[in-house]
Amino acid sequence: MNEPQVLIVMGSDSDVAIMEEAAKILDNFGIRWEMRIASAHRSPKKAAALASGAAERGIRVIIAGAGMAAHLAGVIAAETVLPVIAVPIPGGALNGLDALYAMVQMPGGIPVATMAIGKAGAKNAGLLAVQMLALGNLELAASLLRYKETMADEVEQKDRALQVRLQDK
Amino acid sequence: MNEPQVLIVMGSDSDVAIMEEAAKILDNFGIRWEMRIASAHRSPKKAAALASGAAERGIRVIIAGAGMAAHLAGVIAAETVLPVIAVPIPGGALNGLDALYAMVQMPGGIPVATMAIGKAGAKNAGLLAVQMLALGNLELAASLLRYKETMADEVEQKDRALQVRLQDK
Amino acid sequence: MNEPQVLIVMGSDSDVAIMEEAAKILDNFGIRWEMRIASAHRSPKKAAALASGAAERGIRVIIAGAGMAAHLAGVIAAETVLPVIAVPIPGGALNGLDALYAMVQMPGGIPVATMAIGKAGAKNAGLLAVQMLALGNLELAASLLRYKETMADEVEQKDRALQVRLQDK
Amino acid sequence: MNEPQVLIVMGSDSDVAIMEEAAKILDNFGIRWEMRIASAHRSPKKAAALASGAAERGIRVIIAGAGMAAHLAGVIAAETVLPVIAVPIPGGALNGLDALYAMVQMPGGIPVATMAIGKAGAKNAGLLAVQMLALGNLELAASLLRYKETMADEVEQKDRALQVRLQDK
Amino acid sequence: MNEPQVLIVMGSDSDVAIMEEAAKILDNFGIRWEMRIASAHRSPKKAAALASGAAERGIRVIIAGAGMAAHLAGVIAAETVLPVIAVPIPGGALNGLDALYAMVQMPGGIPVATMAIGKAGAKNAGLLAVQMLALGNLELAASLLRYKETMADEVEQKDRALQVRLQDK
Amino acid sequence: MNEPQVLIVMGSDSDVAIMEEAAKILDNFGIRWEMRIASAHRSPKKAAALASGAAERGIRVIIAGAGMAAHLAGVIAAETVLPVIAVPIPGGALNGLDALYAMVQMPGGIPVATMAIGKAGAKNAGLLAVQMLALGNLELAASLLRYKETMADEVEQKDRALQVRLQDK
Amino acid sequence: MNEPQVLIVMGSDSDVAIMEEAAKILDNFGIRWEMRIASAHRSPKKAAALASGAAERGIRVIIAGAGMAAHLAGVIAAETVLPVIAVPIPGGALNGLDALYAMVQMPGGIPVATMAIGKAGAKNAGLLAVQMLALGNLELAASLLRYKETMADEVEQKDRALQVRLQDK
Amino acid sequence: MNEPQVLIVMGSDSDVAIMEEAAKILDNFGIRWEMRIASAHRSPKKAAALASGAAERGIRVIIAGAGMAAHLAGVIAAETVLPVIAVPIPGGALNGLDALYAMVQMPGGIPVATMAIGKAGAKNAGLLAVQMLALGNLELAASLLRYKETMADEVEQKDRALQVRLQDK
Repeated sequence: MNEPQVLIVMGSDSDVAIMEEAAKILDNFGIRWEMRIASAHRSPKKAAALASGAAERGIRVIIAGAGMAAHLAGVIAAETVLPVIAVPIPGGALNGLDALYAMVQMPGGIPVATMAIGKAGAKNAGLLAVQMLALGNLELAASLLRYKETMADEVEQKDRALQVRLQDK
Repeated sequence: MNEPQVLIVMGSDSDVAIMEEAAKILDNFGIRWEMRIASAHRSPKKAAALASGAAERGIRVIIAGAGMAAHLAGVIAAETVLPVIAVPIPGGALNGLDALYAMVQMPGGIPVATMAIGKAGAKNAGLLAVQMLALGNLELAASLLRYKETMADEVEQKDRALQVRLQDK
Repeated sequence: MNEPQVLIVMGSDSDVAIMEEAAKILDNFGIRWEMRIASAHRSPKKAAALASGAAERGIRVIIAGAGMAAHLAGVIAAETVLPVIAVPIPGGALNGLDALYAMVQMPGGIPVATMAIGKAGAKNAGLLAVQMLALGNLELAASLLRYKETMADEVEQKDRALQVRLQDK
Repeated sequence: MNEPQVLIVMGSDSDVAIMEEAAKILDNFGIRWEMRIASAHRSPKKAAALASGAAERGIRVIIAGAGMAAHLAGVIAAETVLPVIAVPIPGGALNGLDALYAMVQMPGGIPVATMAIGKAGAKNAGLLAVQMLALGNLELAASLLRYKETMADEVEQKDRALQVRLQDK
Repeated sequence: MNEPQVLIVMGSDSDVAIMEEAAKILDNFGIRWEMRIASAHRSPKKAAALASGAAERGIRVIIAGAGMAAHLAGVIAAETVLPVIAVPIPGGALNGLDALYAMVQMPGGIPVATMAIGKAGAKNAGLLAVQMLALGNLELAASLLRYKETMADEVEQKDRALQVRLQDK
Repeated sequence: MNEPQVLIVMGSDSDVAIMEEAAKILDNFGIRWEMRIASAHRSPKKAAALASGAAERGIRVIIAGAGMAAHLAGVIAAETVLPVIAVPIPGGALNGLDALYAMVQMPGGIPVATMAIGKAGAKNAGLLAVQMLALGNLELAASLLRYKETMADEVEQKDRALQVRLQDK
Repeated sequence: MNEPQVLIVMGSDSDVAIMEEAAKILDNFGIRWEMRIASAHRSPKKAAALASGAAERGIRVIIAGAGMAAHLAGVIAAETVLPVIAVPIPGGALNGLDALYAMVQMPGGIPVATMAIGKAGAKNAGLLAVQMLALGNLELAASLLRYKETMADEVEQKDRALQVRLQDK
Repeated sequence: MNEPQVLIVMGSDSDVAIMEEAAKILDNFGIRWEMRIASAHRSPKKAAALASGAAERGIRVIIAGAGMAAHLAGVIAAETVLPVIAVPIPGGALNGLDALYAMVQMPGGIPVATMAIGKAGAKNAGLLAVQMLALGNLELAASLLRYKETMADEVEQKDRALQVRLQDK
């Protein structure tokens, strides 16, 4: 119960600023996570080992972030039957469109749950992981419902603030 | 236990030919599913009701397929905290690229697990649903490992068949 | 007559800077408007309610602005028979191309009148709303003709200013 | 009242097969239309004259369909203050993406209400025209509400048919 | 002989910074030009009049620059048989790709000689105009050959400067 | 006067079916042309020689058609100061978008007048060549004006035929 | 000397029809090759083993073909220091553009020599392999020069055949 | 042995900042290189001469960098049988996507080994050149293996540094 349930892995330490959006969400829901750097290309054995040993260490969901020809999520999905969530990292001349295609267009047999490019995607990766873990955890499911209500409330508050601002004009 | 655990929903009956790839995979793993037609645009109340009532009916994962400005997955994700998997349906002048963007680029707060455009994506949607359900089901996890081995075996057999074919030349 | 005729709705308060271009145009033509924040994903019930109740409140045209997987216009169009004008908001890694596709590629049955990405689109959304309202309002139609003449005059003045600048060189 | 209220104009007679989707919808709602061929490039004076004289002849909405570097809608919008709806026609090497960009990305000042590429877009162009005309016509508004209900019913029927088909398997 | 031979027209005075690259080239070759602002959408009559009267005034080549749904070159080409050269202006969310498609994808019958997006395109528009004028002017043709030699010389000098820089390291 | 004035060159004999659209137009206007196969990659010396010797042989305009990484027009433009018109040939996985980019995005100094992808582009290449030749040939200019009128007439006839067809319904 | 020097590997037996273009070229130059099926996703261990053991078995160049989210070339390049040539396989909704991006946009440190999408790319992969092997083999270099001359001759013959065909008209 | 083995050529001195990434890698491996500026368009004879004379001067691999309609690599490959590696240079409105297409989509017969757009591509061009030279040089092959190990070590160190940073939080 004290062990990390979600493994957040990324190809480079320059991806941390984006991928920590996933970690923040997991923290919000009290889910322990582990964040690791492993490259599908520069350290393939490490990436494969992280993936193939994850289930045994108690990891239940893996989130992988990578940019350009982003193979990390696919390489990890090839080595585990745990659900793998992919976050395309923006950057380079194609600004993450290459990473999106390289992650989402997986051939049949090896699913990778792809999120939006960048921070919104990383945040949603965290939330999807929570949703998966909540399948067997009623308390977590209740927290997700409260989170959803809070989001609706925030929209409501922003709308009211806008009405005030418009009337003041 | 006899009730469907996965809801497969799509915007039009013309999408069935693609979305039944998901159903076939679920059948393979002995998981009961329900397949429904509901449109985010033509029958928004039905789509919302299917989503908001799903958890209560025992549904644990929702797979949504739609084409063009594919809002179905997002609309469903807005109404539930169950994990939602999206399959962009090809067709129209942009051949599914519009559906891909309309599904994967979800803003922070509402994750949608996007798959590849078309049949490969539908198949993987089924597999990802199984992976999620396997988080709390060791037997299912074992089936997934066997499935993975079978895939590797099939590659091996195709490779051997190719070697025979090449030698016969 | 004192009630707003145009509802400008957007997914986030960060979109106000773009969407107020629509409001400015409506102000120019003396048309009252209402500006609201509602998200298709974070507050779907509010978005649907704003749309389904709009006609009764006297709203005659709805302008919806959203970014990324921009479902707001489609979700609103699903709940009303009032004309819905969509403004794709730039931003994110695809800079509004995702929002454009998610708005313009609506399936048959639910039209969404899509404008250019960003401020030019928001301005034109305001103008299109005026054009619609002018269908039953000769005075408004006359104002639109004057607006068109003013635009032509401004081009003329810019051309003359350029000729002066070129001769001074 | 017997005169056409909607002008459907297109650049070439090869576009009729797509643009008649708009006409069919208008027929459904009992709205008279006129269908004309005029090219922004090959017959610019005719295109401009059709547009500038439209209001006087009783036309209230113009629908323009064109392919490739689709200038027709913009050229017409430049000559009238009536609302102009654009339908990008697929075809050529870029299959309508060129037409979409050439229609939707109008600069500020001259709105063009752009629809999806192809038949779905032409159908929606017809519906949007009806929505505009319904702003001053309660009966038409009621017809649109019935149309919306019919669409929802059709989805319902397709869903039921699918359930029957699935049970028979 | 003292009258301008090339008309450089653009949709907005914000395009001058790019289009003056064409003027600079024409100055280099001693060709008189005229620079005008006219919008296909905001001042269509002016744009058409500039084009249809150009030949009579002694203009022999027209260069048109425009951004977004760039109709200016096509609208001008529709009104003249003089060669029309198009320069897509970058800017907006699609950064000139929309302008490129709206210019280059002209249907059969109305050619528009399209250049690269932005300053390189404007410069080349000037050069192409010189090449056209040189068809009936041997002196101009000789100047073009010298220009080509100068370009080759400049590459040579840059190469030599690089060799010196590399040896100094 | 009997010698060809326009050189039509293409990278492969499979391009003839598209490029002969240019030849047909030149035939219409009584302009002699020469059609040659030369590849920028497979026969670079021949391509360069065709270009560098063209002016001397009396050629006044060069039209180059090529597909994929279409370097032919640029390579030819590098070797001559005659105007070079480029036709992107569709085909391959990117269907001519690669050829379009490889032709239109020429760097400053070497203009290439790029046309639409495919047959419409080839036809327009022929017309642009006629427009260039007409700069010094009043008779040709008059023919172009008649051609323009014929196009407008054809639109008119198609429009009338459509009116008849619609009334017969 | 009798052992294969080039390993051609692909993700699926459906890719053979494209990848045998590479084999044909190698046959032309008398270079022995081996063709294998291994998937980066379905049989990752096999793919890695083929790559990591290749050098020892005498393989000197590896050609990898894959479609969609084409990770095979990158995964192989991660396991060897032999040069890896990548061929994007067309197919699926994005027709190989996904495979191109997933192959060519490799991050720094792991080069993959990417060819054109489809058969032209496979043929060129074979030729590039020959060029690499010819670095240490003067005879092979001479064969390549002859091959180049033959290509130029074929262009010449096609050009002559075209001239004959044109004169016969 | 003292003569350069790799020719790095680029179209403009503004490309040096990117292309020197290739030179740095070659320096790392002790391989002599030559860096030259030659333009396929502005100095075609120089570019062709550099390519056709390269083998004789002892050059064994050519790396070519160019932007926009990047013809340089193809033009060089047309003149030599040495392997040619292409680096698309970012910049301009399409930011290197044009250069990528113009380099990678080479027709059959003339391979160009294309790298990623920008600095990562230039670095990998250097590494691929080393891999080619290592085919006949065991020492170089051993250096490449050490380089690969160093990369894996660096990933390991970054991962450890991240663990320390996370624990300190």
